[in-house]
Amino acid sequence: MKVGNTHYRSVWPIGDDAVGVIDQTRLPHAFATRTLTTADDVLAAIKTMAVRGAPLIGVAGAYALALAMREDASDTNLTTAHQRLNAARPTAVNLRWALDRMSALLTPLSPAQRAHTAWLEAACIADEDVALNQSIGRNAAVLLQAMHADVKRPLQLLTHCNAGWLATVDFGTALSGIYQAHDAGVPLHVWVDETRPRNQGLLTAWELAAHGVPHTLIVDSAGGHLMQRGDVDLVLVGADRVSARGDVANKIGTYMKALAARDNGLPFFVAVPSPTIDWSLRDQMNVPIEERSVDEVSRLTGIAASGNITTVRVVDQSTTVANPAFDITPARLVTGIITERGIAAPPDLAALFPEFRPAG
Amino acid sequence: MKVGNTHYRSVWPIGDDAVGVIDQTRLPHAFATRTLTTADDVLAAIKTMAVRGAPLIGVAGAYALALAMREDASDTNLTTAHQRLNAARPTAVNLRWALDRMSALLTPLSPAQRAHTAWLEAACIADEDVALNQSIGRNAAVLLQAMHADVKRPLQLLTHCNAGWLATVDFGTALSGIYQAHDAGVPLHVWVDETRPRNQGLLTAWELAAHGVPHTLIVDSAGGHLMQRGDVDLVLVGADRVSARGDVANKIGTYMKALAARDNGLPFFVAVPSPTIDWSLRDQMNVPIEERSVDEVSRLTGIAASGNITTVRVVDQSTTVANPAFDITPARLVTGIITERGIAAPPDLAALFPEFRPAG
Repeated sequence: MKVGNTHYRSVWPIGDDAVGVIDQTRLPHAFATRTLTTADDVLAAIKTMAVRGAPLIGVAGAYALALAMREDASDTNLTTAHQRLNAARPTAVNLRWALDRMSALLTPLSPAQRAHTAWLEAACIADEDVALNQSIGRNAAVLLQAMHADVKRPLQLLTHCNAGWLATVDFGTALSGIYQAHDAGVPLHVWVDETRPRNQGLLTAWELAAHGVPHTLIVDSAGGHLMQRGDVDLVLVGADRVSARGDVANKIGTYMKALAARDNGLPFFVAVPSPTIDWSLRDQMNVPIEERSVDEVSRLTGIAASGNITTVRVVDQSTTVANPAFDITPARLVTGIITERGIAAPPDLAALFPEFRPAG
Repeated sequence: MKVGNTHYRSVWPIGDDAVGVIDQTRLPHAFATRTLTTADDVLAAIKTMAVRGAPLIGVAGAYALALAMREDASDTNLTTAHQRLNAARPTAVNLRWALDRMSALLTPLSPAQRAHTAWLEAACIADEDVALNQSIGRNAAVLLQAMHADVKRPLQLLTHCNAGWLATVDFGTALSGIYQAHDAGVPLHVWVDETRPRNQGLLTAWELAAHGVPHTLIVDSAGGHLMQRGDVDLVLVGADRVSARGDVANKIGTYMKALAARDNGLPFFVAVPSPTIDWSLRDQMNVPIEERSVDEVSRLTGIAASGNITTVRVVDQSTTVANPAFDITPARLVTGIITERGIAAPPDLAALFPEFRPAG
């Protein structure tokens, strides 16, 4: 997508020994890029959420493993780097998926071949992500067009967190369809949850503004009321992990949006590329829910009257704080999952991906 | 309640021509009191939420009308002051209730009698609020004791916004029962929603800390997840207006907490004094939902690294923001309403108050 007049992806190779990323901790107050030259650099960027979003951390993890192979291509380091990177963020499955794919490719190779092959494969995963998101967007845009034809006024969407191009390599998951529908002339407006504590809604608002999509920022508590008063036609979010039967792990607060959608008879859609689907989860949605630093709740950054970017402590240090970062929306609340192969209700998700059907 | 070693109410008369209040916009970062000497002072304090909470703004409104009578006790000013004060906050009914009660008392009096009588009546409404809240607390404490006997471990409550002593003259509504149960030795822990955009959860945390009640602050999106994982036994909130059939207008986000409680089979209780019940609302919950300034969403105040209390702009000025301040939780989601006369399921609420039964 474009920032100003420059086309950006959210991660890009620099030569064959570094990757560039957008420092998402500084958005929307400042647009800054960073050059990461070691696996540890990437690891730190993922942990601090300078690089964030399930699909993007998958790709960043692949590049990190490639950088690790440049440092030390031994079997030991391949195993160690895989494990360390995989532990950076536990809830999204894309990181594990990308690392597993890289390791499966690299393990049979001689150490001398690994760094170069890894670099090409990471680029391949990045390009695939872009293609998957374009396909998701095409499928979602058809849905949005049909819904608009039905309501005969600007379509009102509500989204939570950021499932835009910043969360992927390009185009986004939930926002990909919004961009394509907007570009196709479907009039629409997006209610953007601010998404405490990290306020990824501000990233969504920033993306939508850059693309000219009408939107309004709201606090996370407002969505239910907007649905009650008839100002939302559908909820559309991304996800960090979707189980084989369609349970959805996504940013904390998603579950209550799904409850409000159901209570108001509104459809709740989740847009994900297939690497976000964890086919190993066939029954219970047994997913680790990351507990993040309480500082994310206690401190906030903005522009002070001086014009300086300033961090203030809003919550007293003596106050106990908990910060679970994700929740699970059960499949029974999900109207449809929008993938690169089409849209399926949760019970039909596996039919879109017959190659993952369990043997026997 | 005590602040340090000093006993405070949230509003108090100073002589017979001023009222003292705690400036709630400065909490929890600073504890400061203000002296309000005119009706306009009180009006401004209510609008800016220096004075807030449905029961408290009722009492503050009564004192404001008394101050207005000191300025000009004419019939015209009685009507004008009533109307201006009533428009300060549209959703909570206590303000209207208190002003109606004051006007009914004052209108038949000669102007010369009004200021003195109004002052006494405002004090009377304040004292009544304290007594009502103590009774609510007694009724709620019985419930909490029974629930604790049932779960046989510390009882886990979740509350939204601030329904503590700061929101009333003393003791609080939802928190009154928590204080009484805690004082009676019931082990309990309170999950405190931060309650964006104004973060009244910080007031709740400040109150609970002062009283020694274990609590944990969370973002507003976290409650559903905590309920899913079995860490909440009941939700207990206050309200700004309850209809005769038990629909509940309360701080934005309450509705989704009620949905999550129902989805997890948990009880959802609302604690209100009878002046919060609007007996004129018998069918539709047709209540004005206040839209407050977008600055409440865009700007946040905390302590900067310098140690100074600093306001930062978190949301870019070009971003469109909406800020509805309340939502309606339908009676079907409410397990019980805790009043000074006892606890009733919504269909039985009117039976607790037979004097308000419609004639004929």
